[in-house]
Amino acid sequence: MEQKIQEALAEINRGTAEIIDNERIEKLVRRYFETGENFYVKAGFDPTAPDLHLGHTVLIQKMATFQKFGGIVQFLIGDFTASIGDPTGKSETRKVLSNEQVLKNAETYKEQVFKILDQDKTEVMFNSKWLNELGTAGIINLASNLTVARMLERDDFSKRYASNTPIAVSEFTYPLLQGYDSVAMNTDIEMGGTDQKFNLLMGRTLQKAYNCKKQQAVLMMPILEGLDGVQKMSKSLGNYIGVTDEAFDMFGKVLSISDELMWRYFELLSSKSLKEIEELKTAVENKEVHPKDAKDTLAMEIVDRYHGAGAGERAKEEFKKVFAKKDIPTEMDEYTFEENSWICQVLVDSNLVNSTSQARRDIKAGAVKINQQKVTDDKLNLVNGEYILQKGKKNFAKILIK
Amino acid sequence: MEQKIQEALAEINRGTAEIIDNERIEKLVRRYFETGENFYVKAGFDPTAPDLHLGHTVLIQKMATFQKFGGIVQFLIGDFTASIGDPTGKSETRKVLSNEQVLKNAETYKEQVFKILDQDKTEVMFNSKWLNELGTAGIINLASNLTVARMLERDDFSKRYASNTPIAVSEFTYPLLQGYDSVAMNTDIEMGGTDQKFNLLMGRTLQKAYNCKKQQAVLMMPILEGLDGVQKMSKSLGNYIGVTDEAFDMFGKVLSISDELMWRYFELLSSKSLKEIEELKTAVENKEVHPKDAKDTLAMEIVDRYHGAGAGERAKEEFKKVFAKKDIPTEMDEYTFEENSWICQVLVDSNLVNSTSQARRDIKAGAVKINQQKVTDDKLNLVNGEYILQKGKKNFAKILIK
Repeated sequence: MEQKIQEALAEINRGTAEIIDNERIEKLVRRYFETGENFYVKAGFDPTAPDLHLGHTVLIQKMATFQKFGGIVQFLIGDFTASIGDPTGKSETRKVLSNEQVLKNAETYKEQVFKILDQDKTEVMFNSKWLNELGTAGIINLASNLTVARMLERDDFSKRYASNTPIAVSEFTYPLLQGYDSVAMNTDIEMGGTDQKFNLLMGRTLQKAYNCKKQQAVLMMPILEGLDGVQKMSKSLGNYIGVTDEAFDMFGKVLSISDELMWRYFELLSSKSLKEIEELKTAVENKEVHPKDAKDTLAMEIVDRYHGAGAGERAKEEFKKVFAKKDIPTEMDEYTFEENSWICQVLVDSNLVNSTSQARRDIKAGAVKINQQKVTDDKLNLVNGEYILQKGKKNFAKILIK
Repeated sequence: MEQKIQEALAEINRGTAEIIDNERIEKLVRRYFETGENFYVKAGFDPTAPDLHLGHTVLIQKMATFQKFGGIVQFLIGDFTASIGDPTGKSETRKVLSNEQVLKNAETYKEQVFKILDQDKTEVMFNSKWLNELGTAGIINLASNLTVARMLERDDFSKRYASNTPIAVSEFTYPLLQGYDSVAMNTDIEMGGTDQKFNLLMGRTLQKAYNCKKQQAVLMMPILEGLDGVQKMSKSLGNYIGVTDEAFDMFGKVLSISDELMWRYFELLSSKSLKEIEELKTAVENKEVHPKDAKDTLAMEIVDRYHGAGAGERAKEEFKKVFAKKDIPTEMDEYTFEENSWICQVLVDSNLVNSTSQARRDIKAGAVKINQQKVTDDKLNLVNGEYILQKGKKNFAKILIK
């Protein structure tokens, strides 16, 4: 059993950026192996935009790891803040959501995360319940647990204060509310990104202040790099793989990453054990396995996860077929364009058509394809990525948007 | 009518330390004279200790002045904060009170303030009503209206922050709550001491933020000096005249103040018009009136206010009799003691008895008097002030406790 415990702890530690109170995590896991007693692992999610990409799933995969070793996941949807939005009116992303919208978004979350998480070991929770119950007096009591000076130590607050950028007093309450969630939820371990460290530690502070029997451990995951291997994966940067991406696109996107980034993705996204990954890496280094084949393995695993077993294999075959088809040349001209370039202009500038009006007509006629898919919208702007652009049967260009 | 308005405004301005938006006050008073329309004048009171001294009545007298010229007094008892006490546990004065205690204290307030205020033009209000209704979301919205930097500009906060003295985040909410009271109460003018300026202005800020049709004017009264003429009147300094002091004591205390301080008390405490006071002052300066007689006039007015018409005259007579009585010497030895000196030790040290056990026996026998009142408690500790201490019929000493 000791070996299993050690393996479990290694799996939990794998890829983490920082752990606070690892002893407690060890105790919880050990107790599970010895007595079968479960423990609570919390992570909070924004209720406004349940459209996950693989950057988010780094955390969710770690939650899934905990589920294997006794963790009950507290999937917290932070609907309280969505009920008030951003009272300062400065943030466009902090929209007010109706209760109906929150529940709808929660359903979308479930569809996406239960491809990774074990539904039977997951509690989807909403913090509006206990935060609304706090009331005026409760929140003042809550706010009495932290000093202004301590709050201003938080990295972003201290920078804004130093540069005279206004900080609304209300903003001081958000870390407190997040911490209080852990009090109300009786959390054992809270997870988040490294950028959340201050708020994650607040749960520890407040569990102590409220005389809870336990103080949560904190496990922080690194921020996943996007397809470019440099910037963090993000929708707005266009360097992402969405959980709801089509299998074919998902496969292609994984193939497009560098060999170096592949090992990072293996560590943070694959369900393979560390040992398996190490063996694969050694095989590649010893040239027993081609890097492209290792990447195929990763891509197939990811596609399988979101599209069901076998979908990875099918995507791989389709990919092979498309590029192997005689009517797609192995060599073609390459062109690079800026993000959001207009499809019609791109067709002109890559010498596939003579004018944008001709391009419009060709699109209307169904003669233009991107990655083998017909283009139907002549107003399309291209986001970052690599594409094969095709006009008619014989004209091809490789397009790089960045 | 114009003359009456000008007189009213002069009465309102009398003795004030600072007024913000005096134009608005002028408009409200003018409208009252022209149309009979009332306006709301708010002042907040601590629900824990309804034991007023004349330092407090400076404000209450000004409220009474407003009542003469159209003001409806909003006598606000800040019971919300009493319901939560001091969550940081640092303040001993901020006790948690039950609702019953709050109501009982409110009754005591009423007994005291309706000697000055017109009951028919006074609304006694409790802020727990609307502050509890605010709730978690409401208070976060409220706190979004002010920045941390602005809050740290408040004099005491800036000093504490600079000296690394902890400020709990909850403390930032109190000025906001006080300001929100004005929103909920639809206040036209808020009054307070000069030390309250920041919080008083908060009402203006928040009425604007909440799109109220009006923004309150702010009228600040100075802090009244105590009997010593130097430090502010305060219970703990012992230099106070309590609203519930006996008529005789009250009279004697007023007589004890300096001639200079007398004019300050006239300005801030007397109901005499400014013109009358000016005439009296001139008469004293021209030696047509003895300062002692002017002081008698002030003392009688104050005694009448708290003990009913005629009580001042009776106190004056009694005072005269006591000190004119043959058996009280005009000259006697003077002794100075520290605050909280024990009566028995004072009797020994002022050579009225030979031992503290003798002193105890004399007190038990009813042979010891302070200011003509029998002492019954042999454990009595003397607070700051001047006393005539008497043992038996013939032994006197003047006692100064400071």
